[in-house]
Amino acid sequence: MSEITETQSAWLDDEDLALVRDRVPMVYVEAVPVRVDDLGVVQQVGLLLRPMPDGTISRAIVSGRVNFGERVRDALLRHLEKDLGPLALPQIPPGIAPITIAEYFPNPDITGFHDPRQHAVSLVYVVPVEGDCEPSVDALTLTWHTPEEVTSPQLGQEMTIGHDRIVRRALAYAGRLDG
Amino acid sequence: MSEITETQSAWLDDEDLALVRDRVPMVYVEAVPVRVDDLGVVQQVGLLLRPMPDGTISRAIVSGRVNFGERVRDALLRHLEKDLGPLALPQIPPGIAPITIAEYFPNPDITGFHDPRQHAVSLVYVVPVEGDCEPSVDALTLTWHTPEEVTSPQLGQEMTIGHDRIVRRALAYAGRLDG
Amino acid sequence: MSEITETQSAWLDDEDLALVRDRVPMVYVEAVPVRVDDLGVVQQVGLLLRPMPDGTISRAIVSGRVNFGERVRDALLRHLEKDLGPLALPQIPPGIAPITIAEYFPNPDITGFHDPRQHAVSLVYVVPVEGDCEPSVDALTLTWHTPEEVTSPQLGQEMTIGHDRIVRRALAYAGRLDG
Amino acid sequence: MSEITETQSAWLDDEDLALVRDRVPMVYVEAVPVRVDDLGVVQQVGLLLRPMPDGTISRAIVSGRVNFGERVRDALLRHLEKDLGPLALPQIPPGIAPITIAEYFPNPDITGFHDPRQHAVSLVYVVPVEGDCEPSVDALTLTWHTPEEVTSPQLGQEMTIGHDRIVRRALAYAGRLDG
Repeated sequence: MSEITETQSAWLDDEDLALVRDRVPMVYVEAVPVRVDDLGVVQQVGLLLRPMPDGTISRAIVSGRVNFGERVRDALLRHLEKDLGPLALPQIPPGIAPITIAEYFPNPDITGFHDPRQHAVSLVYVVPVEGDCEPSVDALTLTWHTPEEVTSPQLGQEMTIGHDRIVRRALAYAGRLDG
Repeated sequence: MSEITETQSAWLDDEDLALVRDRVPMVYVEAVPVRVDDLGVVQQVGLLLRPMPDGTISRAIVSGRVNFGERVRDALLRHLEKDLGPLALPQIPPGIAPITIAEYFPNPDITGFHDPRQHAVSLVYVVPVEGDCEPSVDALTLTWHTPEEVTSPQLGQEMTIGHDRIVRRALAYAGRLDG
Repeated sequence: MSEITETQSAWLDDEDLALVRDRVPMVYVEAVPVRVDDLGVVQQVGLLLRPMPDGTISRAIVSGRVNFGERVRDALLRHLEKDLGPLALPQIPPGIAPITIAEYFPNPDITGFHDPRQHAVSLVYVVPVEGDCEPSVDALTLTWHTPEEVTSPQLGQEMTIGHDRIVRRALAYAGRLDG
Repeated sequence: MSEITETQSAWLDDEDLALVRDRVPMVYVEAVPVRVDDLGVVQQVGLLLRPMPDGTISRAIVSGRVNFGERVRDALLRHLEKDLGPLALPQIPPGIAPITIAEYFPNPDITGFHDPRQHAVSLVYVVPVEGDCEPSVDALTLTWHTPEEVTSPQLGQEMTIGHDRIVRRALAYAGRLDG
């Protein structure tokens, strides 16, 4: 949910985007960046600190729109590179199905996932990241947290629009939702 | 990919639909209807015979658009009821993640999934169906096929736009792609 | 982890079972019984109250060993019928892969899943149950709980050997781990 | 299904192994090694040429037993290193659930997966491999094949005991079962 500054998109200007957002759900991809050990066990989850669609500055996972004509994997790589920098070396998984989906609505009561701007259906992937991450201009910082930390009430409060629930689903998928 | 006659949709008139289809990917749900035995083993796959977006009359799985403001599960049930009738008793699975996704493009060479009308990202589910199926006006017939039949070259030729590949992925997921 | 009284097994007597338990991991199946609505949304999770391998009487999911020569689906149905009664009408899912695995060890520190008797690798499935449940002699009662209740600290304390974590993974899979 | 020469196992001597194999299902892990591009798209599947439990020399995926006290991920890494060499750099996935399971029986008619020695339940993972592979003494060679090649009738005939079906399930999972 991060293309606040993505209006440079060659595919869609602001007016057109506003127009379609009132008419159909948007397709999004979201990635939970993780550090894993040699056995594939998740050691840390990466969170960006960034402006969010609900107007807050919050911790967040990688997120962004799929453009017209763009494959899901291309969108994933584009947003990972945009948010984590060109040296992050994300390992996009071979499986094509997302681990979960998140349905964002302008009305926060429908699913709990909330995006005042639009109805968005997000395909969520867990993406191991091996390289050095340099968050983009949009994101203020990137911090890494153990599964215990990232599911703590304190960090939970620093996430909005439902990203804390996506992180817990990702940890459950990885067998690391221990708390 | 079936809302050829869905222009009665309260959500979007034809002009608006044409407009957004040129600008963003559409969100679709697709369901592979299956008959299962008491152990959950897939015995048969259901195929509709219907007009397809590529202009053919072909065998097809259940397919349709997710409307603005509509949850994925609601869209799944709506299209299942529309295509299989009100007595089909579909068992929409408790898992929220699709078993696979299919990415349809106007250009058939990008993924092999082809929709001349639009770019669509489809969330695919396998849905056991227990009740009596009465295909809607759109669909001419519904026929049930064993895993062996449905992966035969003959039936494969009767499916277009990539539905044969989705059926094979569904059977692989079910452990029933034996051929 | 429930065959405390399963020594009537035709396949393996107590002495043989003790012998193999020291030498190889056992194969288990576990099922999280759920009530779903017409859209497939999990409304309730079923928990048994029963004697557990750690010596406690605790809340637990359906669990049991896969016998020599028995298919996983047959073992699932057998344990579901044993624990929930013959009228439960469990809907074993068409997908053959478990939603998660749990690895039980005599040493509770390896994975947190703990079985003093053995090393067991459990394949976990989420199983919608439509019919009337009558828990077997082994289980004292079966109770149904909303996702909110079943993840509460109170009910969490009533589960041992790691079943609370399996329930949370099942809810995450279903998109219902909201807390 | 490869520990023909694994009798050096510290955990279980031949006599004990024979004894337990008649009494309980064995836990196995199997890995489909893949080469992926930057987008995570599977480009090639790796197949070993090796002695198989059915007495043939055939193409095969990585396969082996989980020892008593050993975690699934440790067994996966051990068998990957044994079969692909110490420089293969396998990327064991963060998700703990296998993509599918295979149930091997002495009777080839039950599931089609056949192991004359035992009943084995195998947890199957797709594992991207980045490094240089040097197959072990057990395996004669390791060869890489495109999805098209590996699903061809010719290569299918060079696989036994069901490994061709596992490869197809892995490709379906990856969205690459195109044939």
